[in-house]
Parts: sequence; structure tokens; C-alpha cells
Amino acid sequence: MKVGLLGLGTVGTGVYEIINHQRGNYFASSKQEIVISKVMVRDIDKKRKVDVPAEYLTTDFKDIIDDEEIKVVICVMGGLEAEYNYMIQSMKRGKHVITANKAAVSEYMDVLYKTARENNVSFLYEASVGGGIPIITSLIQILRINQISEIKGILNGTTNFILSKMSDEGWDFEETLIKAQELGFAEADPTADIEGFDVSRKLSILSSMSFGFHIKDEDIKKRGIKEITSADIDTINDMGYVIKYLAHSKLEGNTYYATVEPVLLSTKDIMSNVNEEFNIISINGDIIGELQFYGKGAGKDATANAVVGDLMYIINADFRKQEIVLDQQLENGGIKEFSGKYYLRADSDNHEEFSHIIDTISDFSNNKKIIFNRSKVFVVTDEVRADQFEELVLELKSKNINLFYARIYS
Amino acid sequence: MKVGLLGLGTVGTGVYEIINHQRGNYFASSKQEIVISKVMVRDIDKKRKVDVPAEYLTTDFKDIIDDEEIKVVICVMGGLEAEYNYMIQSMKRGKHVITANKAAVSEYMDVLYKTARENNVSFLYEASVGGGIPIITSLIQILRINQISEIKGILNGTTNFILSKMSDEGWDFEETLIKAQELGFAEADPTADIEGFDVSRKLSILSSMSFGFHIKDEDIKKRGIKEITSADIDTINDMGYVIKYLAHSKLEGNTYYATVEPVLLSTKDIMSNVNEEFNIISINGDIIGELQFYGKGAGKDATANAVVGDLMYIINADFRKQEIVLDQQLENGGIKEFSGKYYLRADSDNHEEFSHIIDTISDFSNNKKIIFNRSKVFVVTDEVRADQFEELVLELKSKNINLFYARIYS
Repeated sequence: MKVGLLGLGTVGTGVYEIINHQRGNYFASSKQEIVISKVMVRDIDKKRKVDVPAEYLTTDFKDIIDDEEIKVVICVMGGLEAEYNYMIQSMKRGKHVITANKAAVSEYMDVLYKTARENNVSFLYEASVGGGIPIITSLIQILRINQISEIKGILNGTTNFILSKMSDEGWDFEETLIKAQELGFAEADPTADIEGFDVSRKLSILSSMSFGFHIKDEDIKKRGIKEITSADIDTINDMGYVIKYLAHSKLEGNTYYATVEPVLLSTKDIMSNVNEEFNIISINGDIIGELQFYGKGAGKDATANAVVGDLMYIINADFRKQEIVLDQQLENGGIKEFSGKYYLRADSDNHEEFSHIIDTISDFSNNKKIIFNRSKVFVVTDEVRADQFEELVLELKSKNINLFYARIYS
Repeated sequence: MKVGLLGLGTVGTGVYEIINHQRGNYFASSKQEIVISKVMVRDIDKKRKVDVPAEYLTTDFKDIIDDEEIKVVICVMGGLEAEYNYMIQSMKRGKHVITANKAAVSEYMDVLYKTARENNVSFLYEASVGGGIPIITSLIQILRINQISEIKGILNGTTNFILSKMSDEGWDFEETLIKAQELGFAEADPTADIEGFDVSRKLSILSSMSFGFHIKDEDIKKRGIKEITSADIDTINDMGYVIKYLAHSKLEGNTYYATVEPVLLSTKDIMSNVNEEFNIISINGDIIGELQFYGKGAGKDATANAVVGDLMYIINADFRKQEIVLDQQLENGGIKEFSGKYYLRADSDNHEEFSHIIDTISDFSNNKKIIFNRSKVFVVTDEVRADQFEELVLELKSKNINLFYARIYS
């Protein structure tokens, strides 16, 4: 069987090595001829870490789409519209599609599934969420029997690496980001990671599958991590918590709630020990209970493994039916079903402002713990609803008060 | 499609409810007629928690094996030889077999697979390890691409419940066991759980699948948890560790190593936060890296979900091929590839015996920390190989010294 590969970056290189260089169990022992016969790249002359015969390389998508021998197209490019169009065109020509492109799956899941069904091909995207963690396959299996009402996860390696290092080394955010960039754990433009777009796309994919309704990235409330300081980390650790960047969605009746934000976890929580580039995903099924899946959330080999795993389904003729159906009508309930005690740090130099901060918090929470320490006030509130706490924050921010806050989860 | 059910205990009841009472997503919405039409039980007149029509019940296996309409036999009885024979006979009559019986799978995996292949039927056993955790399915998928060289896990809810409660409540072992029995978390005869037979059967199944060689329960070195005292728990917690009952196997070249024993984990280790009836399994693949799977290791619904999940594969005609092949020739290397620092507690009333204990340990380890406390000596050794430490223990036990020891893992 012949396969076309779109993209030869990190993941594409890993996929090429497993298939054409016969790395791994299956390809090393199989007599079934599977080969990537065409690879679309932007620049044919670029120096590469993997040895690909010149005649395999092309810059023209037509060379792949018009090749009748190519039965599967693997899309491991990072853009959106062009990649989406390549996938749609491939399916319309009867080719199975496998992708690691979370932006395209998140934005166009409904059309991609519809096109796959109409053309009787597979559309598989295990590598789009959680790197090597087999979460998409597991979710499909769990959904055969269970209703899933809640998803939680640490889904971004860059931000988890930054938060782990801030905790372990006592570094400030900016300093840690630079180190992460030097080490290749953060991109030159880190916006998608540190502002939550990467995480919310993954949460969008998992939530859409689980709740049966296409929830897009933009439907998810998100808040970044760059306000976190080493003073926050110190105080949070002293209180016995760990700060993590959490994706969380819930379904109640016909309303869904979804958020991506920094939160505080007890050191007794399994997720509190998920560090550096590792990811974890928790799924709550009505019959099976809670399941958690942990593994490498990124990286060449782990992600390539997920892509090739999808190819195995096509080879084995499993998953021919597209079981996921997005036929529910749900409403977006925002964040008002999330609630908990809150940690808040506010910076101030004068007593009048301090009094204003404390008064404002008192309007929302009765019992609270307050610590003053060098031009900073640290507060832990009583239980408050997330949407109400946002009002409090807006009020403080309107006075130009510099602050950071996070809900305490466990 | 008609299904025969062998056994109507806890798990059998859960399976019956999901299928015949149409609990859950698939059965509640599907138009496909799937029904458990015969249930084999020991006593027809026994009062049951689930409403099964009298004409479905039988005590005679012939009623199931001779029923040509029954295409799948689900075996959720707990014995060994009889259950194994029911499964073999069912397959020989062209019926697919699903089981939760870890004893039979562990002991007869090779023959069960061989019989399934010869008769072109499915043999599925997701529920035999890890309750609701989809570990068997995941393992099969991972093995398509990866070599697996290491498996670790907390695989027994009863012992994990006992160790969690000893830690949290400060209770002694005997006291905790009685509480666990009262709460239904331990059986009247707890031997299989607290001596490690239950865990080693599960490790046998996972290791056999992963390493491609039939490793039986009896090939695994096991040590129980009943020597653990509240003095151990106190000391271990003070040192920053948590005690867990760990299954661990490794493959190096053509030699495997497998052990089931209490160990000490750092509170930074994910597994240290796995409490009560929950299980966790860590798999290490050469391409995908480490994956961990967490969920309810027992219980009616979670385990029934796993059984019915297997039925879904048969309905969807996935997994028709039996991908697991036990064709390797491996040697049992015992425990000599495990090593680490050791915690040891020895009880003694006189100074001469104390000196003997310390001298004996000095023969095996240079740097060691020693604490004396009320007729007890607590020692942490330098790194020692597991087989050598066993010699040390034998030497001390030969002098009738009461002791407990555990390797420090992380």
C-alpha cells in the first residue's frame, strides 16, 4: 500500500522513519508492503535529518492527489486552511486521511467527519491530542458504552515544562520561557502555548467527541499563564499546592462548560505529579468511572507512533465506521458551573488600595485567609463561583491592580 | 445476536444489566438485537439482585454449548479448570469467548490463543486485568509498533486499600484487613490478594503479551504485605515515601525478570497518589516512551464495562485477527536485575542481636542510615541487588529475627 505524506517536519520525519526505514515491531517484521511514496514539502532543497530519495519529494499537492496508488494521506503540517483543504480533497478522491493537525480537526471536525462518511473513508487523528497517549482511540471505545460528562487534562508540554521549572528552580516566568525556548520546549512565538490556544483546541476535540456536539476553540474560555510570578509559586507551594495549566469541560443536561486556566492542585492529586513535557487526561464515564491516561504529550517518536497507530487501523480494516456523531444540540454555559476556593495575589504599595482590595473580596467571600508580604497581599477565599470571581477580578483590574488568581481544585 | 453468560456474581450481574437491561450508550440506542439468552449459575433458586427470567437460567453447560444461536460465551466465573474447559469447548464449537477470569488466562493463555486461532474465533479478556482500565486493548495497539521492555503497576485493589488506610489512619495490618473485609474490599479468605497471587496473575498476563512468551504466575517471585506494621508506615512516611504493592517485570535480551512486592515510592511519583481501589499500569515502549493508565481496578460496573467493551469488538468485527503471538524463547532471570536502596526494619530486644543485624547489613552495603527506636532498628542501605538483599534477609531470618524490608523505587 502506498501512502502520501504532507509535511516533513519533526513528526513527519518520525513517521517516515517508522514506515520507510522500518523502525518498530510491525514494519520490521511485516511482509506487507507499505511505503511512503510521495512527500510534500515546502522546499525540496532544504537539508534534512532523514534520508528521503529526491524522486519522492514534491512541492505540488497534485502529485499526491492524482496518484491513484496512494490510498492514505497523512497530514502532519501545522497550518489551517490549506491543510484542511488537502484533507477534504484527499477524502473526496477516496483516500483515507490521518492527521496530527489539531487546529484543522478542532475547527472543521464536523465537515471532516461528514466528508469521510460520504466518501466511505477513514478519518483518524490520534496524534492531534496528547502526543503518544492513545486518548482518541480510547475515547471512541469508552463512548460505545458510556456517556462522558467530564474531561480534565494537562494537555500542553510547553506550559507544563515552564510551570514545573518555575516550581523546581524558583525562576520567574520570563526567565523560564527563555530557557524553554533555548531547550526547544517553547517556540520562538510562544503565544499559542502560553495563551491557551493549543490547549483549547485539544479540549475542543475531546469535548466535541465526548458530548456529541462540535465545540470550537473559540467556545472555550481561556486564560494564560504569564501573570504567574515566583512569589505566587512560593506561596502556593508553602500552602501545599502545585500550580498546573488545566483544561476542563463538563456536560450538564444540554449545556456544556469549558475552560482552560491555571489552577491549584493538592500534592495528593495524581495530576500534581505530572511534570515537564508529560500530559495527562482524565475522562469520566457514567459506567466505567474515572480513567486517566498519562504519557509524552509531544516529541517526534511519541507523536509519530500515534500517526502510524492510526495507519495500523486502516491496514487492519478496523474502525471503518466513523462512530463519532456530532448530532446533539448543546448550549455554551460559559464557566458558571465551575466553582471553588480561590487563591489571589494582588500587588499594591499603599494602604488605601489594600483596603479596597480586601473590601472588594469581602463582597464575594466571607471566610478568607489573608497574608500581607512586601507590597503584596495573598488571599484564599471561601467557595466562589467562577463567573462571580471573574467579576471581582474585573473590578480590581479596572483600578489597574496587578494580580494573579487561580481556583483551588483538590 | 445471542450471548451465553457463565456466572451471575458481581461482574455477571453488571454485564447482564448493561446488555439485557440496556444500560449505557450503545444498548440504549442500538437497533441491533443483542441479548443474553442463557445464564449458567450454580443454584437456580438463589435470590438475586438482578431480574433474570427463570427460563434463561440453567445449571447445565450443555444448554449453552449446544445452543447454535449463541455466538458468544462470556465467562465471568472465578474458578480455574472447569472455566478453562468451558472456554475451550465454546471455541471448538465456533463461539467467540470473552472472559474476566485472570487465573485461567494466566495459566492457559497459550492454549486459549491456539484454540481461538484454530477455530477462527475471538478470544478477548480485557476485564482480566485492571478492571475498567482499557489496558489489554491498549497493549495490543502499542505492540503493533513498539517493543515493550518494562511493565509496572499497582494491580490489586484490596492490598492498595489496606496500604492506603494503614497510611491515612495509622492502623496496623490485621486491624485494617478486618475493616477491609467488613467494607467488602477484602474477601473472607484474603490469601490470593495479600500474598500476591492475584497481582502475579495479572502481571503474568501483561508480561506474556508484551514479551511474546508465556510467563506463568509461578514464574513470578512474590512477597506479601502482612509483615508491614504501623511502625513501618510511620517511619516510611517520615522519610518522605509511600508504601505500595508493586508488580514489575522487565525484558533484557532473552531473559525476563518479574516480581511482586511492597516497595517505597517518593511522594513525587505519580503512583504514590494512587489510592484505595484504584489501579495504575505503566508500560514502556521503545518508540512511544512511557504510558500510564489509571482507573478503577475492580467493581461491578467498571469490570462489566470492560467485558461489554470486548463484545463491542466482536459486534464491530474488529480484532478478528489474534495479534498476540507467544513465539519467543525466554529465560527466567529471577530478580537479579532489580536493585536499589533498601529500607529494613528489624525487631530486637538485646544489644548483641542489634550488633549482629548491623554487621550482617554491613556485609552487603557500605553507606547506610540507621535509626534505633524502642526495640527496633530502621536501616536504609546503599544500592544493593535484589537477589543479594534476599540473601541478607535469609541470614537474619535464620536467627528468627522479625523484620520487614522494601526496595526504594523513586
